[in-house]
Amino acid sequence: MSQTDPADLTAALIRCPSVTPDEGGALVLLKGLLEEAGFTCTRVDKGGIANLYARWGEKRHAKTFGFNGHTDVVPIGNPDDWSADPFGAEIRDGVMFGRGATDMKSGVAAFAAAAVDFVRDTPPDGAIVLAITGDEEGDAQDGTIALLDWMAAEDERMSVCLVGEPTCPTEMGEMIKIGRRGSMSAWFTVTGRQGHSAYPHRALNPLPAMARLMDRLASHELDQGTEHFDASTLAVVTIDTGNPATNVIPAQTRATVNIRFNDSHSGAALGDWLREEAAAVDAAFGTSTELTVKISGESFLTPPGPLSDLVSQAVEAETGRTPELSTTGGTSDARFVKDHCPVVEFGLVGKTMHQVDECVPVEQIHQLKAIYARILRDYFSG
Amino acid sequence: MSQTDPADLTAALIRCPSVTPDEGGALVLLKGLLEEAGFTCTRVDKGGIANLYARWGEKRHAKTFGFNGHTDVVPIGNPDDWSADPFGAEIRDGVMFGRGATDMKSGVAAFAAAAVDFVRDTPPDGAIVLAITGDEEGDAQDGTIALLDWMAAEDERMSVCLVGEPTCPTEMGEMIKIGRRGSMSAWFTVTGRQGHSAYPHRALNPLPAMARLMDRLASHELDQGTEHFDASTLAVVTIDTGNPATNVIPAQTRATVNIRFNDSHSGAALGDWLREEAAAVDAAFGTSTELTVKISGESFLTPPGPLSDLVSQAVEAETGRTPELSTTGGTSDARFVKDHCPVVEFGLVGKTMHQVDECVPVEQIHQLKAIYARILRDYFSG
Repeated sequence: MSQTDPADLTAALIRCPSVTPDEGGALVLLKGLLEEAGFTCTRVDKGGIANLYARWGEKRHAKTFGFNGHTDVVPIGNPDDWSADPFGAEIRDGVMFGRGATDMKSGVAAFAAAAVDFVRDTPPDGAIVLAITGDEEGDAQDGTIALLDWMAAEDERMSVCLVGEPTCPTEMGEMIKIGRRGSMSAWFTVTGRQGHSAYPHRALNPLPAMARLMDRLASHELDQGTEHFDASTLAVVTIDTGNPATNVIPAQTRATVNIRFNDSHSGAALGDWLREEAAAVDAAFGTSTELTVKISGESFLTPPGPLSDLVSQAVEAETGRTPELSTTGGTSDARFVKDHCPVVEFGLVGKTMHQVDECVPVEQIHQLKAIYARILRDYFSG
Repeated sequence: MSQTDPADLTAALIRCPSVTPDEGGALVLLKGLLEEAGFTCTRVDKGGIANLYARWGEKRHAKTFGFNGHTDVVPIGNPDDWSADPFGAEIRDGVMFGRGATDMKSGVAAFAAAAVDFVRDTPPDGAIVLAITGDEEGDAQDGTIALLDWMAAEDERMSVCLVGEPTCPTEMGEMIKIGRRGSMSAWFTVTGRQGHSAYPHRALNPLPAMARLMDRLASHELDQGTEHFDASTLAVVTIDTGNPATNVIPAQTRATVNIRFNDSHSGAALGDWLREEAAAVDAAFGTSTELTVKISGESFLTPPGPLSDLVSQAVEAETGRTPELSTTGGTSDARFVKDHCPVVEFGLVGKTMHQVDECVPVEQIHQLKAIYARILRDYFSG
């Protein structure tokens, strides 16, 4: 029987201009393919965002393998900077170009193609779920979260989940993500009292307090890393005052800090620490600091075990490489899935993601489909 | 003989809209008055700025009393915020309103009126010079500096000089300025290497270096004050980065520092210190800091002596107050005059200067003329 070509499917998806929040035809295309293969498909749209839930097999089957991914892409930037049409899927020397080529239309195409062929050729005793969102690159509030909320309300479930995001730094097969650091940002506003630079004793300059606070935060060692995680990091990303006058002491200054934290912290505890540091500086300087904290995601870990073994063995069989189990990198929708079932991430080499001339070797799309297919075979035969 | 009314003259000057760099008719008006009284007047215009040099008596006379002042004023801001026409010189309850009412059309009117009456009624054995600029509120490069340069070239001189700027914080007669602190600003640009907040080890964040540098500068005690000066001060007036993205570590950040320094420092030595501090932080953080320094004026002092005694005694005789000899406050054109002859400053209460509804009690203008007249009498009889 003819096999579904994941490269053709990737090309078709790249030709859908699905820059967040636009659906661009990508989920419509996938829904058609999956319904023809016997999947029950539901559009779980929310807040102007399109999401697709597809299940083959019995609802709540004890062996339900889930795939999660997204069809939305980041903007292309200046089209003149591209050497190919960003929505053209042009292939040059075996490499396909286009926005989403690695992040992650190829990943979605690979797991959709693998799933379609697998249920047709060797229908398993179990279920396969594809939860595909159109809001991963945006603020992600109406994407995978909406899908998971809908699943909970409809009593749908996954036993395990594989997120198909690019995970390999340079070589295909070298890395599986078994967790992610948490991410949070904090916005500080330090307020003093305006005045004339010639009479600083009549003013209360908020800038020395801000400098001390940011120095304290930036030079503090949060931890030295844990068994599965690198050390947590704090980056002061901006300090702004906007005072053009050298003879004026400003009343206020602002700063933003971003923290990537491992499993030795919680977002709440770090928020408390930031507030304590600000209070200590306020006490020393007489300033008044306001603080807004936003936790994008807590850190999480799916400890090495059956799921990571399953994926590792498939990767090794298809690529000859033993993948590293890693928790590095930014956030992904796995941070939402982890509250529902064990989750790991494996996908292509992410080098060109979000860049001009994003591209993927066509051969790697086929390789990725082969890995996902082997994972399905091993999971349902295990 | 009828005396020149300094309040009428102040009102006439206020009605000249001489916002820097516009002459507005103010110097033309004064030139007419002074020439009629026997002064030799020369317009010393430069770079679009009008300046007026007026001398009564013999050139280079060993007893030449100089007055220095300016007729230009700062902008009025929003005219709707004023309760009176800023160029109307309206008098309400004995108080005259208008831009320049205290800073310093009243001062110029008072010394011009005093000088005109004095040379007419009691012509001295000596000379009187009025050096009046239209560029004190601007960048001051084409104002008093141009007048002093022209005087040097023309072999004109003053034996002593009184600058008629407002010097009294709240009560008429309470303060004479016998020096001023120096003023300088420094602009820092700290450069690192841009990167992603999730991978700070691949970036070089300039913000921790900037925070450390500004903390070091702001918490450093420059001195504890000297015999005639308050302690020097350093104000961090702005830190700016302009990075809106929490997931980006910026490449660069900027800050500005303003220093008001006493006679235990020079601008050059302070510039060296700033460069050393920046270099120390760069060495610790691996950043690269560029530094631009602008010295607006060095500190200077006319030590208490004959000139300050002369002015003090006149103030005391007319107001009953013993004025404090002070070096506080911002800069004035005395910083240029001090290289030519002993200089002190005495004038009105400066409370409303540069503000909306700038105003002066009419009685104080008369009092100021009386003080200047007494100074002239005492100087030439001494």
